[in-house]
Amino acid sequence: MANPTAAMLVIGDEILSGRTRDANMHHLAGQLTERGIDLREVRIVADDPDAIVEAVNALRLRWTHVFTSGGIGPTHDDITADCIAAAFDVSIDIRDDARALLAAHYAKTGSELNDARLRMARIPAGAVLIDNPVSVAPGFTIGNVHVMAGVPKVFQAMVATVLAHLTGGAPLLSRSLRVERGEGDIAGPLGVLAAEYADLSFGSYPFQRDGVFGANIVVRGTQADRLQHAMAGLSTLFPEGVE
Amino acid sequence: MANPTAAMLVIGDEILSGRTRDANMHHLAGQLTERGIDLREVRIVADDPDAIVEAVNALRLRWTHVFTSGGIGPTHDDITADCIAAAFDVSIDIRDDARALLAAHYAKTGSELNDARLRMARIPAGAVLIDNPVSVAPGFTIGNVHVMAGVPKVFQAMVATVLAHLTGGAPLLSRSLRVERGEGDIAGPLGVLAAEYADLSFGSYPFQRDGVFGANIVVRGTQADRLQHAMAGLSTLFPEGVE
Repeated sequence: MANPTAAMLVIGDEILSGRTRDANMHHLAGQLTERGIDLREVRIVADDPDAIVEAVNALRLRWTHVFTSGGIGPTHDDITADCIAAAFDVSIDIRDDARALLAAHYAKTGSELNDARLRMARIPAGAVLIDNPVSVAPGFTIGNVHVMAGVPKVFQAMVATVLAHLTGGAPLLSRSLRVERGEGDIAGPLGVLAAEYADLSFGSYPFQRDGVFGANIVVRGTQADRLQHAMAGLSTLFPEGVE
Repeated sequence: MANPTAAMLVIGDEILSGRTRDANMHHLAGQLTERGIDLREVRIVADDPDAIVEAVNALRLRWTHVFTSGGIGPTHDDITADCIAAAFDVSIDIRDDARALLAAHYAKTGSELNDARLRMARIPAGAVLIDNPVSVAPGFTIGNVHVMAGVPKVFQAMVATVLAHLTGGAPLLSRSLRVERGEGDIAGPLGVLAAEYADLSFGSYPFQRDGVFGANIVVRGTQADRLQHAMAGLSTLFPEGVE
């Protein structure tokens, strides 16, 4: 059976302006690969309602799961929850259980649960909360869309919670061979071998370091014995290669 | 006049699997911001012809410029040039000037200009070559789409070449104030100020470091005097803030 698929939507002007380098995509990619969920597409859009709604709807109709990061804090530029409600055409309001979480937290820390903080209790109708063990304000899942914070520590904690509840597939295994030959010399025989193993994916990632040209050949698939076969074939083609 | 817009398309299974962390997006974002070109959307897709063609066509019709990275090397998984030709519905073949560049280079290095390397001279009809000072194999521009290598050093060199020929807009300026208060305390007054400066964008990026909670408030716009005004307003609201 084919693995479940996923897309990620990163929401944030700060990524597109180059101010911040996104770290969440790389984290999620690794976690999904381990769980046997194929990340097939990532989009990064600005803090713009139309762009967010359109991307959410395009991705949720196409892939098994959609993971979003960013835009669920207390400030005016945090518009993700409202956009998700618009995308699903459901209402959104302050929800009692989310408010209770925030009230308990801010009572403990001595901060006021003001209007801004209450914005973080606005949850689209029908959503399920995602626990936030770092800073309490919850994420949520609605349909196949998992809405999470952009702060990496919080994002990572929420990903762990969500993935614990999802059915994965066969983890994507990979093995690689480092060959110190120009990619142009590798390409011919590699292409022939790749065609013989249509159930595996073969990637070639060139490098140039200290004047040495070469490529890391990466073979990916879900069956360890097929990978083993393919690696044996690669070693025959490129006996100087190093696993 | 509004600034020109841009999108980026990152092509590569290795990014989606989490094996490689993309570095090109962050580089391009910074370069475009300096040139006054607004990066509005990024998509990352797999080495899949349908996905590439669809994304190229969606992005090129919507934004002033599209920058792609990845998939123009000599191996079987390098399919970008063919996908671009398909997206524009033009033919693609080995082009004499591109072949001549490669022939001269490989003659010098003593490598054979074999079929695999000749793949890198396949250029869609009507494209203009982009110089590759690092490893010779060219990128190309067709219509408003700039097709570049995924290897960061080569990507960066090609971006510099392309940007030297594009008309930019007013560079996006930004200033920031670091405030050591919870974002929930900042949010109310910040939202009011942001509404007063509708020509600027205000972002709030929370942090938590060594037990200290706070936010970096970033104001972006193209007019230095307006930024100066807004920063004065911010300093009045948050006198403890540090620029």
